[in-house]
Amino acid sequence: MDADDRRERFDRGMEVLARIDGEAGERVVAALSDVSPELAHQIAAWGFAEIYSRPQLVPRDRQLVTLGMLTALGGCEPELEVHVNAALNVGLTPQQIVEALLHAAAYCGFPRAINATLAAKRVFAERGLLPVRDG
Amino acid sequence: MDADDRRERFDRGMEVLARIDGEAGERVVAALSDVSPELAHQIAAWGFAEIYSRPQLVPRDRQLVTLGMLTALGGCEPELEVHVNAALNVGLTPQQIVEALLHAAAYCGFPRAINATLAAKRVFAERGLLPVRDG
Amino acid sequence: MDADDRRERFDRGMEVLARIDGEAGERVVAALSDVSPELAHQIAAWGFAEIYSRPQLVPRDRQLVTLGMLTALGGCEPELEVHVNAALNVGLTPQQIVEALLHAAAYCGFPRAINATLAAKRVFAERGLLPVRDG
Amino acid sequence: MDADDRRERFDRGMEVLARIDGEAGERVVAALSDVSPELAHQIAAWGFAEIYSRPQLVPRDRQLVTLGMLTALGGCEPELEVHVNAALNVGLTPQQIVEALLHAAAYCGFPRAINATLAAKRVFAERGLLPVRDG
Amino acid sequence: MDADDRRERFDRGMEVLARIDGEAGERVVAALSDVSPELAHQIAAWGFAEIYSRPQLVPRDRQLVTLGMLTALGGCEPELEVHVNAALNVGLTPQQIVEALLHAAAYCGFPRAINATLAAKRVFAERGLLPVRDG
Amino acid sequence: MDADDRRERFDRGMEVLARIDGEAGERVVAALSDVSPELAHQIAAWGFAEIYSRPQLVPRDRQLVTLGMLTALGGCEPELEVHVNAALNVGLTPQQIVEALLHAAAYCGFPRAINATLAAKRVFAERGLLPVRDG
Repeated sequence: MDADDRRERFDRGMEVLARIDGEAGERVVAALSDVSPELAHQIAAWGFAEIYSRPQLVPRDRQLVTLGMLTALGGCEPELEVHVNAALNVGLTPQQIVEALLHAAAYCGFPRAINATLAAKRVFAERGLLPVRDG
Repeated sequence: MDADDRRERFDRGMEVLARIDGEAGERVVAALSDVSPELAHQIAAWGFAEIYSRPQLVPRDRQLVTLGMLTALGGCEPELEVHVNAALNVGLTPQQIVEALLHAAAYCGFPRAINATLAAKRVFAERGLLPVRDG
Repeated sequence: MDADDRRERFDRGMEVLARIDGEAGERVVAALSDVSPELAHQIAAWGFAEIYSRPQLVPRDRQLVTLGMLTALGGCEPELEVHVNAALNVGLTPQQIVEALLHAAAYCGFPRAINATLAAKRVFAERGLLPVRDG
Repeated sequence: MDADDRRERFDRGMEVLARIDGEAGERVVAALSDVSPELAHQIAAWGFAEIYSRPQLVPRDRQLVTLGMLTALGGCEPELEVHVNAALNVGLTPQQIVEALLHAAAYCGFPRAINATLAAKRVFAERGLLPVRDG
Repeated sequence: MDADDRRERFDRGMEVLARIDGEAGERVVAALSDVSPELAHQIAAWGFAEIYSRPQLVPRDRQLVTLGMLTALGGCEPELEVHVNAALNVGLTPQQIVEALLHAAAYCGFPRAINATLAAKRVFAERGLLPVRDG
Repeated sequence: MDADDRRERFDRGMEVLARIDGEAGERVVAALSDVSPELAHQIAAWGFAEIYSRPQLVPRDRQLVTLGMLTALGGCEPELEVHVNAALNVGLTPQQIVEALLHAAAYCGFPRAINATLAAKRVFAERGLLPVRDG
């Protein structure tokens, strides 16, 4: 792969990342650029340009899977904030996001569900989406 | 809560569980009944009657979240087989299931994605759905 | 389940939660109430009214199991603080709590044991229980 | 530490291990002896002689913590079988063991609780303790 | 990226994978090819051609990191067998592999270290490398 | 084991710990000393005097394994900072550390790799090692 191809893949990935994760995602890539430029590159060039952009699953569905994974992994509250933002950006409602995290209580237990829900709350507060009403 | 109410919740949960998870889910509840009847009860009466049946997220979406969680947790291959079956039952295609597990490679790494994909393969094989073609 | 029954289960759960977890637990439920009222409800109505209050295991024993789980899960330091408080409330001594977390070093490794012990230290400091002497 | 001291600590640990874990634990140490004699040594000489035998927590209480940790870790079904045996050996009843694993449903989710309960069922079946009745 | 480039990256990755993981790794890719051809592709084209082959860390060092990760993740015994084979292929001795897994006891606890060591034992048995002597 | 032997093992472990982990490690032991003096003791007397100091794997190699484990465990950012410091102390370069964490992206996913890389960045910033250039 030559340098032009490499650059093109990165740029294409950053477009997808910006559209989905917004500024929160761009800040992660920027924060990595002076410590691990290759990790920053691969998040965009592989994670977004090659995986995320595949049409087999629409972005809204990918965010449901992602919310489930990040909640289950634990210790990923910063990434959850990025992806709760992304979930809103691709059309999930606060009620659906919160419901996915309630669903997580049954599969990952209350502590993981609570941590994820409080991460979502921080994002909703920033975007003026509180309170979330049930039903 | 009186005994009738308790029984009614269990029965309602088993209906939801049977519709979604099918026989694979019923076998889990049956296997638990002589060792932890209360766990068997709560899976149906709470997990399915109270959580799964909530309309805030449709079953198809819940299965996307669940596939993400079970893949991330690791060591849940038997549960993944139940829920890959469930995912097919509620309308996800083999391509979408496999794509959700490919997406997991980026968030949980290859080993978790491989284990989950091989669990899906066992279900697809039983249901005559192999090979799965990409795209 | 009608609204009265639902309310009654929540109230009963909150009584158990308040007796065991004290203010630290009530703050978690309050923090969730404007983002996921259903999660707040289920922690009390299911977690405490249906599971925690079962007489098959006394609260002191449940807290030993819980300390083990939260230490092993990792990334649950806020929940550990709640449950170290709870452990003291139901009769475990600081020495026993610290010993359970030392025991965790053998099963979960030093990093998890250290994180949990430092969470316990924060609770002991607030309650004037430092230093904890061995033996 | 000279060789005699090292041997003495191992022997002392094996006595504790044999009393608590029984044959199931001895088989693990034996299985390790031709691949990692030092790991086999440390399980006995450190895990049992130095940690497990400390009087600050009685064996029954240590098994409650251990059941919680192994359930939360996941992927530890062989170790769970050893420790469900150990739990019975140190005085926990099948009902209490099963209750600890039901409690785990609330903190680790149903999949981990199911896997652990089915591991307990295999031990109970071998020891003629099925069915376990609730309450 | 055109089809030729895509194919070239896959082929290059398979060469690296075959050299490092040997037949055990090739079997994983083959097993995935009829259920998730894209996952099979990305393991080779990304995991091996883009990440593994980078010269910043030699294969022997990558295997030390990998053994640590797979042991810590848990539930990855099949992958551990592949990577214990790989570790031998790139120049780590059985003593060094076993020592890395003993080291894991201190950071991940005995259960994870035992599971990983028994996976290593299965590989050593196949390759006629038992017993492993300490020191 | 008499008190002199116990003290001698602790002192020997603290020497190893100080040489490898430096002040960051000594601060952890000090922070534990008034809440769990036995955990503080065992980290030095067992973790460092008995395990870490074994010659079967040199410190540099142990740190590669350790970075892999802490990244995979998740929720161990404070321990990662200690061990990134240790990795530098035993001769790994910033490029090699960052590469090990990039490698982790393939086995543990991007979120764990990002969290670990940002922990490394904090250490590099303190030690004046930023930016890290690729290649």
